[in-house]
Amino acid sequence: MAEILNENAIAILGGTGDQGLGLALRFAVAGQPVVIGSRKLDRALEAAENVRSQVPGASVEGFENGDATARARIVILSVPFEHTAGTVKAIRDVLQPGQILVSMAVPLATAIGGAAAHVVGIWQGSCAELVASLAPKGVEVISAFQNVSAHRLQALDEPVECDVIVSGAKEARARVMDLCAFVPGMRGINGGPLGNARIVESMTALLIGINIRYKVAEGAGIRITGLDLAE
Amino acid sequence: MAEILNENAIAILGGTGDQGLGLALRFAVAGQPVVIGSRKLDRALEAAENVRSQVPGASVEGFENGDATARARIVILSVPFEHTAGTVKAIRDVLQPGQILVSMAVPLATAIGGAAAHVVGIWQGSCAELVASLAPKGVEVISAFQNVSAHRLQALDEPVECDVIVSGAKEARARVMDLCAFVPGMRGINGGPLGNARIVESMTALLIGINIRYKVAEGAGIRITGLDLAE
Repeated sequence: MAEILNENAIAILGGTGDQGLGLALRFAVAGQPVVIGSRKLDRALEAAENVRSQVPGASVEGFENGDATARARIVILSVPFEHTAGTVKAIRDVLQPGQILVSMAVPLATAIGGAAAHVVGIWQGSCAELVASLAPKGVEVISAFQNVSAHRLQALDEPVECDVIVSGAKEARARVMDLCAFVPGMRGINGGPLGNARIVESMTALLIGINIRYKVAEGAGIRITGLDLAE
Repeated sequence: MAEILNENAIAILGGTGDQGLGLALRFAVAGQPVVIGSRKLDRALEAAENVRSQVPGASVEGFENGDATARARIVILSVPFEHTAGTVKAIRDVLQPGQILVSMAVPLATAIGGAAAHVVGIWQGSCAELVASLAPKGVEVISAFQNVSAHRLQALDEPVECDVIVSGAKEARARVMDLCAFVPGMRGINGGPLGNARIVESMTALLIGINIRYKVAEGAGIRITGLDLAE
């Protein structure tokens, strides 16, 4: 590989979408170096420019997905569910052992023309486990960020007020939980093994239904109560 | 039917168990008439006596499940998942159109010797939908209360601090959401159609895993954030 990983950088593939852009903004505000990936370089450059304009002095660059993947230890897959497998296959040869691949997509039934308040069943159990089945050996797959509203992520003057259930192998999970602490009002909660992603992913469908019924334009979120954690 | 329904009474079948007893206590504190059902009359009488001793002046009676079912408009099934179908079949002839049957069991994998942090798949989609498939015509089945810790229900000097996602047909759902408002710190959230019970039930398994990992003896709960509701 030509590129050297940046230990501290966070790559966000699909960082041009609403939720990916929101995460990029939040990490940029927290002073973290961010790399935005897209299938199209010009869209990635545009999103990076967008983040820099909102967060002066931010370290944010745009690249094609493969180049973005090569530039960060943690790679967040922020593409719609139906593009997830294709995206992982496209970056497969770039991924290196020790990298952390974060699955945040939800298998909403919209992928097959259904309702956003429904999920479809995934053979492996969840989108995150589908990603794990495609990732090269030595790459740790972590499930996180599914339940966070894009709107709340992008509203930089307000705390996010949502917990993030983080599932997967211990060490990588702890690193992604640390990422959550960069965002005001967001707590990373230890969600145990990756298989629990099937529950967390379906919770997004439930929240979408709640958003519709309660007319919550900003997006509802979740909190786990009864934990003795500092925010 | 010999017995006349008490419009305001709440029957809790399996009210001798930890969670059912907790609900009985909370509704009793709120001044609601409660009927505790059990397969064994003496256990039901004992549980009713327990509630009366903790809540002086409470209107709480104990009956065998069928007799308890005949005495309330709202009947809460607080039996373990593996006894749910059997209990519904046992009260089937007593249930009348217009009654509301509340499913609160979770298909934990413990039913088949597995882990409490896992659920098993239900042919109908969820325990609540299994109940609906067995209930007589005209009985509305509602899904609720799965995510509330028994410990927190029984700790009468503290608010419960947990939202209850209530799913099912509109009118019956609204009545069960009203029940939630009787309990301090508990909010009934409109969870849409009954099919969403599959998500809410699996969330209990996630919370059980969180209880284990975070050593939360009192039981973690959930809150939906971003809603404009009075508690």
